[in-house]
Amino acid sequence: MKPIQVGLIGLGTVGAGVFEVLRRNREEIERRAGRAIRVAMVSRRDTAQARATVGDAAQVVADPREIIRNPDIDIVVELIGGKTQARELVLEAIAAGKHVVTANKALLAVHGTEIFEAAQQQGVMVAFEGAVAGGIPIIKALREGLTANRIQWIAGIINGTTNFILSEMRDKGLDFDVALKEAQALGYAEADPTFDIEGVDAAHKATIMSAIAFGIPVQFDKAYVEGITKLSATDIRYAEQLGYRIKLLGITKRREGEGIELRVHPTLVPSKRLIANVEGAMNAVVVNGDAVGTTLYYGKGAGSEPTASAVIADLVDVTRLATSDPQHRVPHLAFQPGAMRDVGVLPMDRVITSYYLRLRVKDEAGVLAQVTHILAESGISINAVLQREADDVAGTDAGAGEPTPDHTDLIILTHETSEGTMNQALARMQALTAVLAPVVRIRKEELA
Amino acid sequence: MKPIQVGLIGLGTVGAGVFEVLRRNREEIERRAGRAIRVAMVSRRDTAQARATVGDAAQVVADPREIIRNPDIDIVVELIGGKTQARELVLEAIAAGKHVVTANKALLAVHGTEIFEAAQQQGVMVAFEGAVAGGIPIIKALREGLTANRIQWIAGIINGTTNFILSEMRDKGLDFDVALKEAQALGYAEADPTFDIEGVDAAHKATIMSAIAFGIPVQFDKAYVEGITKLSATDIRYAEQLGYRIKLLGITKRREGEGIELRVHPTLVPSKRLIANVEGAMNAVVVNGDAVGTTLYYGKGAGSEPTASAVIADLVDVTRLATSDPQHRVPHLAFQPGAMRDVGVLPMDRVITSYYLRLRVKDEAGVLAQVTHILAESGISINAVLQREADDVAGTDAGAGEPTPDHTDLIILTHETSEGTMNQALARMQALTAVLAPVVRIRKEELA
Repeated sequence: MKPIQVGLIGLGTVGAGVFEVLRRNREEIERRAGRAIRVAMVSRRDTAQARATVGDAAQVVADPREIIRNPDIDIVVELIGGKTQARELVLEAIAAGKHVVTANKALLAVHGTEIFEAAQQQGVMVAFEGAVAGGIPIIKALREGLTANRIQWIAGIINGTTNFILSEMRDKGLDFDVALKEAQALGYAEADPTFDIEGVDAAHKATIMSAIAFGIPVQFDKAYVEGITKLSATDIRYAEQLGYRIKLLGITKRREGEGIELRVHPTLVPSKRLIANVEGAMNAVVVNGDAVGTTLYYGKGAGSEPTASAVIADLVDVTRLATSDPQHRVPHLAFQPGAMRDVGVLPMDRVITSYYLRLRVKDEAGVLAQVTHILAESGISINAVLQREADDVAGTDAGAGEPTPDHTDLIILTHETSEGTMNQALARMQALTAVLAPVVRIRKEELA
Repeated sequence: MKPIQVGLIGLGTVGAGVFEVLRRNREEIERRAGRAIRVAMVSRRDTAQARATVGDAAQVVADPREIIRNPDIDIVVELIGGKTQARELVLEAIAAGKHVVTANKALLAVHGTEIFEAAQQQGVMVAFEGAVAGGIPIIKALREGLTANRIQWIAGIINGTTNFILSEMRDKGLDFDVALKEAQALGYAEADPTFDIEGVDAAHKATIMSAIAFGIPVQFDKAYVEGITKLSATDIRYAEQLGYRIKLLGITKRREGEGIELRVHPTLVPSKRLIANVEGAMNAVVVNGDAVGTTLYYGKGAGSEPTASAVIADLVDVTRLATSDPQHRVPHLAFQPGAMRDVGVLPMDRVITSYYLRLRVKDEAGVLAQVTHILAESGISINAVLQREADDVAGTDAGAGEPTPDHTDLIILTHETSEGTMNQALARMQALTAVLAPVVRIRKEELA
């Protein structure tokens, strides 16, 4: 089957990410989508720059309308940002019968109603997973995953720049101006950071989520928008003392029989909530539904490949409309039935992980040396060692007998090794006369 | 249009939840799905019990095959659990041309390949969002939201019973046996908890996620499964001292060119990771993809309505196949275009929230009384008060001038009130001669 032909309008950070991820994961994406997805055309004013990114793999044009006019293009991806030209181009692409994928939150928060109506009439799809919270599939969760629910409220950290600044203010006791400069130096904030720090970007995203959650038109002009520019380190510290953290949240809430709240402002959140612990440039959205209760979605909210992840998910969604039989738009196991691989599960011996070991040993000279010698001979590196009088620890430890003063607990964290190697080392440790009880072995994962 | 006719096989906790949520949110679900979804038949051995749940709203039968044989039924929901009878009924439903929705992880982890092949041949869908992590739409995220990615690994807290027990062991220093009894007394663990505490339930779910992530057949028989029964409070405490928490994780990992890891076991996880802070019976799944990086999905993993939320999302997915034109299977804003409501966004004055206030005041008698009097007259309840010497706090506070010993900071947390009411109270406070600087007001949300 002929590949789906995609035209990228705009080839900046996100556009280059879309191109690169589609290239790198081409085979896996095709197995999922049922059809190859090919970037056939890209438009960028600076065509030499564009050529440097895509090489000979795609036709490069300066005028985005060449993409829209090309009858071979199935899907137009709009990544130029802004509202005026983007609106024109998206409406023209729709009128030309193209599906559109966009990550442009400003465009949809302001002109969404017009654009979606046009798409509906033309029988094309406008997909926009990348417009909210970057790589986190929150639009899909709201539109499809939580359809059983009467959604009560949504609260999200949906601007990475401001969350990075707030994290720095809290961690280092910085005032806003200092933290902003740091964010700019590190590339987390733009030279003109107004849209981020004044809350406008978050309000665009909150507006889109509000419309989806409650089935109402986008109403960006009614949103209350307050940024973080007036926050002081003092208040962040007082909040901490009271058990709260301050986050810039986009909030939308159903007020039964009255209307919808839609607002962006710095917000105290109890420190123990998961969302209060979302640090740096990460995003997270909490959704409360009457059946499901509270759910949370976390990940990178911006950047080249995280946003590309969302844009390509939309491309696969559109492609699947054309490839699967209607009853199997989404294959049962994500990959098309003919594209499954019979990759085997490795036996446990071959699993690679790191370990926590606890040895109850005689409190005598040389034991640590014996144990570390065995690990060294097995090629297992040690990450940390902790030695504790066994009766330091309250609570009983069934099977180890009563701790007495001449026993001690030796705790070792290892670096990665195979389970088989660890099993052999454990058997040797267990045979040491200084080891008084079965060695406790718990696996460890950094999940970084 | 005639409602989609659903038959529920099994009317226990989850079945009753599906019935109740479909009833309660009928109108909202229909606006999303484009067609009413009606439970027309239910089967339960104890028909009197079933009748007590559904009243006259649905036909009650003892024999589930009456549902499968009924040509009017469009979708069969299998909620009886277990593997033998469930497999027969699901295969029969497929053979009869019905779509099937199931939350049965054991069934799919063991017989998934056979069942999905049968569904593929018959042109029906077998949907199973409820089989993994209850109300969290993780199947949708993996199958549709992250299709751009080469998934590297998944690690999840996917059994609420064991996570509750581990949380209790850590919080209260309990040993496993004691925490298990407590979990049983509170209804978080079953009378026979074997499947949960031995890790089998988590392994079923990890097996399903592994197949979806890597495009491989389900291979439950190859999974390594180790439960939490041998964990001691001692190791939980040592782990804590080393900066780790112990969680029962279901893990599946791609090992390039070698195979797939698939394992369930207690695992040390750095305390600072979000997933390490998932407490009680909650579930969370971390997915790492090469483009998106690390994403996390959190929510209730079991229970009547959370699981019903997933089952009904599947029902809406199937219903949308039949209702929308193919290009608009999922409406742009979740609700069908004709079913949008023009609900307005409330003006900020009418927003209801709680507040953090900071007043820089003269350090003299009676100031607190003046301030609290204003709040009382406005009907605003106080939640907490903190008084601090202004120079307790390091860092400067632009606009407030240099703190001097006769100034003090008065911090007040309020209960909920309207923004309009708060604005009036703030104006009155600001007019007090003892108030020396603009009052700082930050909104507060409990997000509970």
